[in-house]
Amino acid sequence: MTHRIAVIAGDGIGQEVMPEGLRALEAAANRFKLDLAFTHFDFGNCDYYLAHGKMLPEDWFEQLKDFDAIFFGAVGWPEKVPDHISLWGSLLQFRRRFDQYINLRPCRLMAGVKSPLANRKPGDVDFYVVRENTEGEYSSVGGKMYEGTEREIVIQETVMSRFGIDRVLKYAFELAQKRPRRKLTSATKSNGIAITMPYWDERVDAMAKNYPDVSTDKYHIDILTANFVLHPDWFDVVVGSNLFGDILSDLGPACTGTIGIAPSANINPEGTFPSLFEPVHGSAPDIAGKGVANPIGQIWSGAMMLEHFGYKAAADHMVNAIEAVLAQANPLVITRDLGGQGTTLTLSDAIVSAICR
Amino acid sequence: MTHRIAVIAGDGIGQEVMPEGLRALEAAANRFKLDLAFTHFDFGNCDYYLAHGKMLPEDWFEQLKDFDAIFFGAVGWPEKVPDHISLWGSLLQFRRRFDQYINLRPCRLMAGVKSPLANRKPGDVDFYVVRENTEGEYSSVGGKMYEGTEREIVIQETVMSRFGIDRVLKYAFELAQKRPRRKLTSATKSNGIAITMPYWDERVDAMAKNYPDVSTDKYHIDILTANFVLHPDWFDVVVGSNLFGDILSDLGPACTGTIGIAPSANINPEGTFPSLFEPVHGSAPDIAGKGVANPIGQIWSGAMMLEHFGYKAAADHMVNAIEAVLAQANPLVITRDLGGQGTTLTLSDAIVSAICR
Ligand SMILES: CC(C)[C@H](C(=O)O)[C@@H](O)C(=O)O
Ligand SMILES: CC(C)[C@H](C(=O)O)[C@@H](O)C(=O)O
Repeated sequence: MTHRIAVIAGDGIGQEVMPEGLRALEAAANRFKLDLAFTHFDFGNCDYYLAHGKMLPEDWFEQLKDFDAIFFGAVGWPEKVPDHISLWGSLLQFRRRFDQYINLRPCRLMAGVKSPLANRKPGDVDFYVVRENTEGEYSSVGGKMYEGTEREIVIQETVMSRFGIDRVLKYAFELAQKRPRRKLTSATKSNGIAITMPYWDERVDAMAKNYPDVSTDKYHIDILTANFVLHPDWFDVVVGSNLFGDILSDLGPACTGTIGIAPSANINPEGTFPSLFEPVHGSAPDIAGKGVANPIGQIWSGAMMLEHFGYKAAADHMVNAIEAVLAQANPLVITRDLGGQGTTLTLSDAIVSAICR
Repeated sequence: MTHRIAVIAGDGIGQEVMPEGLRALEAAANRFKLDLAFTHFDFGNCDYYLAHGKMLPEDWFEQLKDFDAIFFGAVGWPEKVPDHISLWGSLLQFRRRFDQYINLRPCRLMAGVKSPLANRKPGDVDFYVVRENTEGEYSSVGGKMYEGTEREIVIQETVMSRFGIDRVLKYAFELAQKRPRRKLTSATKSNGIAITMPYWDERVDAMAKNYPDVSTDKYHIDILTANFVLHPDWFDVVVGSNLFGDILSDLGPACTGTIGIAPSANINPEGTFPSLFEPVHGSAPDIAGKGVANPIGQIWSGAMMLEHFGYKAAADHMVNAIEAVLAQANPLVITRDLGGQGTTLTLSDAIVSAICR
């Protein structure tokens, strides 16, 4: 069975880590006799925008919709195109139009990676952030009034639906059921954001009734970020709205040492549309072109793609290869964000060779 | 000159730390010959709500508006009253009706306090969060549709005004001008929250032109929370919207060891209305009634109140007393959140006696 994968590298370090993600996937495909077919697309980046006045061609949906997955780098180069234009013109469209309503982001402290947290060792931090990925605070409804005057105001509506909340909660509860600790934490802010968030809490309470084997708690987002730092060992599966999930899935990986290694899966669980796999880090214009970007976020995202296809053994093998290389912590191999002097290539080489081993 | 102070202890540990805040203020007043007159109010707590069906009496505004300040504990007891009702019925009303549009929250790693961050020492973390306190994501505009059906949706509008943004930015830039590093960081999320946050960025850029002596940068809130953990030494003054400021001012203090010591000032800079001083921590029902709450957030908030009145020497003296007691880190004195076995009273006693010394 051939898996057709659309490849969109995007901007900045997206262009540098994508080839390494592909190399690692090809190594795994070889070893496990998988048939992966990659098709490269040169849209979905800021240079494309400068040339065409838009991030994607008119028929992007048609071009992409029949792929089995999208393997994605990172988008954004604010000096060329404002971020809200480049992101709403690409990644955020994919998430919405392909109804990738789950954004799944593992967060794990690995051997060999120095955590910024004191006295935390591998195993102490190991949880998933499940982020709602299609509605909520990321809305296109709103606008400006009294423009250009002292009275100028801007309004943006957060929109949440029972349909949208329930389906992400269902996914999160089912994930929690499969985890040894069976614990779900909900991110809220119902004391301050007093219309949408009490509704979120209501849906969590209702859904929890269907999962008596999962223990549930909730924290307001402010103290929840504090608890990520103070008590990262408390968490197993954390579910949040689009914005809260976004914040927690950068903060979580930071607590495990670097966001350079964090992967993510934007999943359409029904399989009606392709799911999208991308590192959590962005295009990082400040280090782009230097060959020092950490390729692990991209490679690990590739592993999540294989797991999504059902190749659990191949996915685990890739993650084990990553872990083995990190555990060695060879300063000549690992990248700067990990405290080494290595490059994208040295780190990728080590992982690819561990995959082949 | 007499300073008239309204005292509202609120719920949970608010009731336990308030007496200690008052003791410390009285000690400072004695030593510096200040004339502070306290008036206690028994509204603004969940028991009041249970008895009266509302958090505050009808004429609360009239009763409080001529005080020079409000000294506040903490509100909320979700088992008695849902948080959004107790908070919107008290604290959030004060902030709005008394136009306390600045929420100022210092964040400092102190000697003797164990940071959850590895290898950070006192001096490494020392910044202010300046939070917009009257508009933004905390809005009362919105509602529910298709109620009780599968199609149910909730909508809540974020509302930001040029007036509201500019005045908090002005305060933040002026604060940055007074700091040795003269650095201002803006919290944004203009790549995802693509209507209100690009406007926020625009106002920051416009305002920055008036303060050429302040260096300015900005981060999206997701990576900013990561940077609080990875690089807390980067920050000097951080300005954010109501929600982003809320998150950062819990996360920041967590990075310095405990939110139990963090103070805050809700300021109406024009002095038209009383400003309000309160610890950052909440009412903490889980530890309420045990006498183990850390009183430092409340005491330090008292010091901020004295500074607001113009008594810089007295305020510094109180903060020095806090620092001296923390630096000793006597396990019999300091509270649990600081790693000790002390109580609210032992810690408060030590600080009060240091103030008298
Ligand atoms: C209690 C809550 C409404 C409040 C807020 O979100 O403003 C608190 O978290 C704070 O930071 O003062
Ligand atoms: C680039 C940005 C729009 C995006 C988001 O906020 O969703 C990113 O931060 C992410 O987490 O995938």
